[in-house]
Amino acid sequence: MMNLYEVARFLEAHDNYDILTHAYPDGDTLGSGFALCLALRQIGKKARVITTGVPTKFAYLQKNIEEEGFTSETVVSVDVAADSLLGSNMDKYIGKVDLCIDHHGSNTFTAKEKFVDKYAAANCEILYKLFLRMHINFTKDIADCLYTGISTDTGCFRYTNTTAETMRVAASLMDFGCNTAYINKAMFETKSKNKIQLERAVYDSMTYCADGRCAIIYTTLDMLKKLNTGDDEMEGLASIPRQIEGVLIGITMREKEGGFFKISVRTNNNINASDFCSQFGGGGHPAAAGCSIEGDLETVKTTLEKAAEKFLS
Amino acid sequence: MMNLYEVARFLEAHDNYDILTHAYPDGDTLGSGFALCLALRQIGKKARVITTGVPTKFAYLQKNIEEEGFTSETVVSVDVAADSLLGSNMDKYIGKVDLCIDHHGSNTFTAKEKFVDKYAAANCEILYKLFLRMHINFTKDIADCLYTGISTDTGCFRYTNTTAETMRVAASLMDFGCNTAYINKAMFETKSKNKIQLERAVYDSMTYCADGRCAIIYTTLDMLKKLNTGDDEMEGLASIPRQIEGVLIGITMREKEGGFFKISVRTNNNINASDFCSQFGGGGHPAAAGCSIEGDLETVKTTLEKAAEKFLS
Repeated sequence: MMNLYEVARFLEAHDNYDILTHAYPDGDTLGSGFALCLALRQIGKKARVITTGVPTKFAYLQKNIEEEGFTSETVVSVDVAADSLLGSNMDKYIGKVDLCIDHHGSNTFTAKEKFVDKYAAANCEILYKLFLRMHINFTKDIADCLYTGISTDTGCFRYTNTTAETMRVAASLMDFGCNTAYINKAMFETKSKNKIQLERAVYDSMTYCADGRCAIIYTTLDMLKKLNTGDDEMEGLASIPRQIEGVLIGITMREKEGGFFKISVRTNNNINASDFCSQFGGGGHPAAAGCSIEGDLETVKTTLEKAAEKFLS
Repeated sequence: MMNLYEVARFLEAHDNYDILTHAYPDGDTLGSGFALCLALRQIGKKARVITTGVPTKFAYLQKNIEEEGFTSETVVSVDVAADSLLGSNMDKYIGKVDLCIDHHGSNTFTAKEKFVDKYAAANCEILYKLFLRMHINFTKDIADCLYTGISTDTGCFRYTNTTAETMRVAASLMDFGCNTAYINKAMFETKSKNKIQLERAVYDSMTYCADGRCAIIYTTLDMLKKLNTGDDEMEGLASIPRQIEGVLIGITMREKEGGFFKISVRTNNNINASDFCSQFGGGGHPAAAGCSIEGDLETVKTTLEKAAEKFLS
């Protein structure tokens, strides 16, 4: 693995960059991609960002980045932890990636050179330190990109991945003039009308069991069809039941085509979500895990209620 | 007005402190109060925090602060912007306050000496700088108190009052070992079952007008009675309608005893909430204002819908 100085020298030594981001892009992969593109152009390189499409809410990240025509010579990936995460760009690029920059400890991405720092809260936190070593001028546009990645990957500095270092990097980006008012509003204080409708339906679905220590919410295909909404609005729903005071196991059931439900389990107070899900052939992390269960709504819900009562007894 | 060095010398020179917090206490007034109490005791003073009651969610702030018996000699207020905000402690203390430490630019509190810094995101941010000047040892307990005040008054670093300085103070408090995981979970990721019920009811009440550019939610006395809930669960509701994509005016109507509604108005895109409310004898800030309107639910709602349509046309 390269160290950060070697990454800086590598980027200075090469040219004509394709910068790869992951599919279903989030603020960190796009913020990283566009920031790196701007930084490379600043030192005289040609560079472009390869995405699977930029969602409207992130359009501001690329507003000062014009397309450039050139033949790709060097391929760098940002925030891509595994080959499959390239999505529709996988076939074209796998085997041709020169450098992978990532912050996922689980990184298995195929690349000639790598820099992975699992202690960085966001990939953009790595890029901040990299740009220092490249003597990049932190323009407002670069600061906006990096702040976006850091704030979105930390839930606006709320998640446990946030370190004192993360806060200091964000402070520096604010010194450099990033527009936190716009970014925080767009990322954390804006919901589509569909999302509001979906949340309303999900709140209506909520029930408790195990003496209020387990809460269950669900979406069905019928609900989604009626609300004219889909998987892209589901983000964040799974965190709702765990937030309720006294709830140790929060369960989100999402009906899928084919007669089964995807189950997301979030837990508090060291209740092991992965152990809970392993009963149904699933798994994950201690506080966040998942599984799939076949059956109709009532059957699957009853199964989960019984399992929660047993698990908490 | 004193400067921060003079405040430090004042606190070192006096003893036997009553520290006043404001009524309907929040994380900043309580965090300030308990942090100052710990700091004063650390330099050999006697001190206690005077509150109107500490809500359960803030109980951790006082867990290492035993009661002390002594005769009060010096009275200091923290985060109290006006006399009336002392609530039930007003009669006993007004006219006897020696020093007021606050961050509200609108401060009108009656005190012999004052230190007010309106650029501080939280009163706890002022105390951090004060403690540096007093050479206080930032224990984990003090750091927990100060971080709580800063994170709650900034919506976990999301609101526009958050500065680069705020981020750096928070970083230092993290260095000093404050328990951000516990605090962020307790402050931002925990909702009572009553609150969830209330949110569900409020979502069900939501309607749009002015081609989706105005959203209205409401609570009625009947709803609150049925849900067995009250004003203490209403926090944060007013921010819901403004969050919706395309909404310029977000209105929250709360029925009160006496046949009228309290109206909260939150706006986007420079729509002036204060101007909107002034039509009904109210006022406030450009993006957040309020008023009261007499009448039943349907009448008041129709009045607001018509006003919003006219205001946005």
